[in-house]
Amino acid sequence: MATFQPADPAYDSRVRASFARQSMMKMLGAFLERVAPGEVDIRLPFRADLTQQHGFLHAGVTTSIADSACGYAALSLMPPGAAVLTVEFKVNLMAPAAGETFVARGRVLKAGRTLTTCSGDVFAVDGGDEKHVLTMLGTVMTVQNRSGLSD
Amino acid sequence: MATFQPADPAYDSRVRASFARQSMMKMLGAFLERVAPGEVDIRLPFRADLTQQHGFLHAGVTTSIADSACGYAALSLMPPGAAVLTVEFKVNLMAPAAGETFVARGRVLKAGRTLTTCSGDVFAVDGGDEKHVLTMLGTVMTVQNRSGLSD
Amino acid sequence: MATFQPADPAYDSRVRASFARQSMMKMLGAFLERVAPGEVDIRLPFRADLTQQHGFLHAGVTTSIADSACGYAALSLMPPGAAVLTVEFKVNLMAPAAGETFVARGRVLKAGRTLTTCSGDVFAVDGGDEKHVLTMLGTVMTVQNRSGLSD
Amino acid sequence: MATFQPADPAYDSRVRASFARQSMMKMLGAFLERVAPGEVDIRLPFRADLTQQHGFLHAGVTTSIADSACGYAALSLMPPGAAVLTVEFKVNLMAPAAGETFVARGRVLKAGRTLTTCSGDVFAVDGGDEKHVLTMLGTVMTVQNRSGLSD
Repeated sequence: MATFQPADPAYDSRVRASFARQSMMKMLGAFLERVAPGEVDIRLPFRADLTQQHGFLHAGVTTSIADSACGYAALSLMPPGAAVLTVEFKVNLMAPAAGETFVARGRVLKAGRTLTTCSGDVFAVDGGDEKHVLTMLGTVMTVQNRSGLSD
Repeated sequence: MATFQPADPAYDSRVRASFARQSMMKMLGAFLERVAPGEVDIRLPFRADLTQQHGFLHAGVTTSIADSACGYAALSLMPPGAAVLTVEFKVNLMAPAAGETFVARGRVLKAGRTLTTCSGDVFAVDGGDEKHVLTMLGTVMTVQNRSGLSD
Repeated sequence: MATFQPADPAYDSRVRASFARQSMMKMLGAFLERVAPGEVDIRLPFRADLTQQHGFLHAGVTTSIADSACGYAALSLMPPGAAVLTVEFKVNLMAPAAGETFVARGRVLKAGRTLTTCSGDVFAVDGGDEKHVLTMLGTVMTVQNRSGLSD
Repeated sequence: MATFQPADPAYDSRVRASFARQSMMKMLGAFLERVAPGEVDIRLPFRADLTQQHGFLHAGVTTSIADSACGYAALSLMPPGAAVLTVEFKVNLMAPAAGETFVARGRVLKAGRTLTTCSGDVFAVDGGDEKHVLTMLGTVMTVQNRSGLSD
């Protein structure tokens, strides 16, 4: 596991402030569980109105929290003033998303000047058991000096 | 563009019934706009509570409708009794998801006995203009004879 | 299909010169078949020493020509002095790569200042028949002012 | 890290025999370095005729060994008589592929009855240093009872 030195000493409050502006996270009932340099965990309790036709969480929901976890893991390493944009991601759905709560763990694999490569993993938690339901590999962009865009 | 012969003559009502069971689509305000063999379009009006921190639709939202459009495009070609499961997908986010409404177009590229390859494209619509904001490439599985699972 | 205006009037000779420096293409026996703004086709005759264990072309071979076709489709739109780097790609293998020759068609979907999104499709050709064996979705980076790197 | 019980006690010799039939690996100069249940490592010395235009290994080469490592990691867990087919994969290229030798490490993340999810990582080795140059996430299919196909 790589260890990272944050370029912005205020990375923690910055990630939390930007996350708080994501209406989608509030709408899903997701919250920030952990912020560290290059690492962000997001927690989501199960909700029946977020399911697909078989009663499991919709892939778009687990993808949403994995994407936000990856983006904020990347943001935690960005210089002050930069904004974060997701370029692309890929997910494999390894098991049905059934559980009481879900945790998405975003991790930076490689932080470049312009592009950051991240992994994201979502686990379904039932009692003490964790089941690996989704794995993501994605690319996040550091955007600087674009008018009106910052995080 | 490939043309397909549906294996189930009732494919249209079957896709619509399964879509109606996706609580997530209702929660997002998304609806089925078009069903044809190997082709499904889903429409979603913009809503401020579905956005990320810059005010654009969250990537998880556009991904949700692209995934459902791909899955149901695949289901439209499946034999009676089969269920549809998303195996994996990849998206590229080509422009910010800003617009009045969004349309996701799922198309089957190759329908195999077990696996179907699909493309999904999301366009932001503003007045008469369409902007291509997301492109997806994914794999969908035909599940048969698994107890309790059907579409 | 988007149409593009090349930023470099010498795009054709520039793409051909860079392709000629790809030792890997020569080693595979691949050649440039067509160059247009945002579009590059690469042709590869079948060779038994490029196969996997079942006698089909190895996925790494069809991926190689799809990646080069995408990268050069992107380069055809880049300003003079820039270099091209592949950031990431995803492929779906839709049929065994069996045929007399193979053609990879790289197409630019969206050309941004820093990042270009491309699709790549590989077809196996046998007599007059074309079979779609691979589809790629990828991201290519325009690199400028990096010492020693140009195309 | 998951641990796996191989379904075929002869998994080691079976993987080695199938690898030996991959002409492409021989052509690249790649060899099997390690086989364990759900884990396969492939080694490749640098060769100038496998490069792209900047003198780094072509992405198709590092992808080839990552794909074979993933496929054989999956095969190591398959029942006797089954054959392995790559369905799809995605790679992120995190650094230029420059080094004396390269090692691809394929690992099974989830082994299902029909589909196996794998990760693949390629490291460039220079003296004692390892640099992470590529990460892959892919899907491999277990094919049974298809005439003429076995591994």
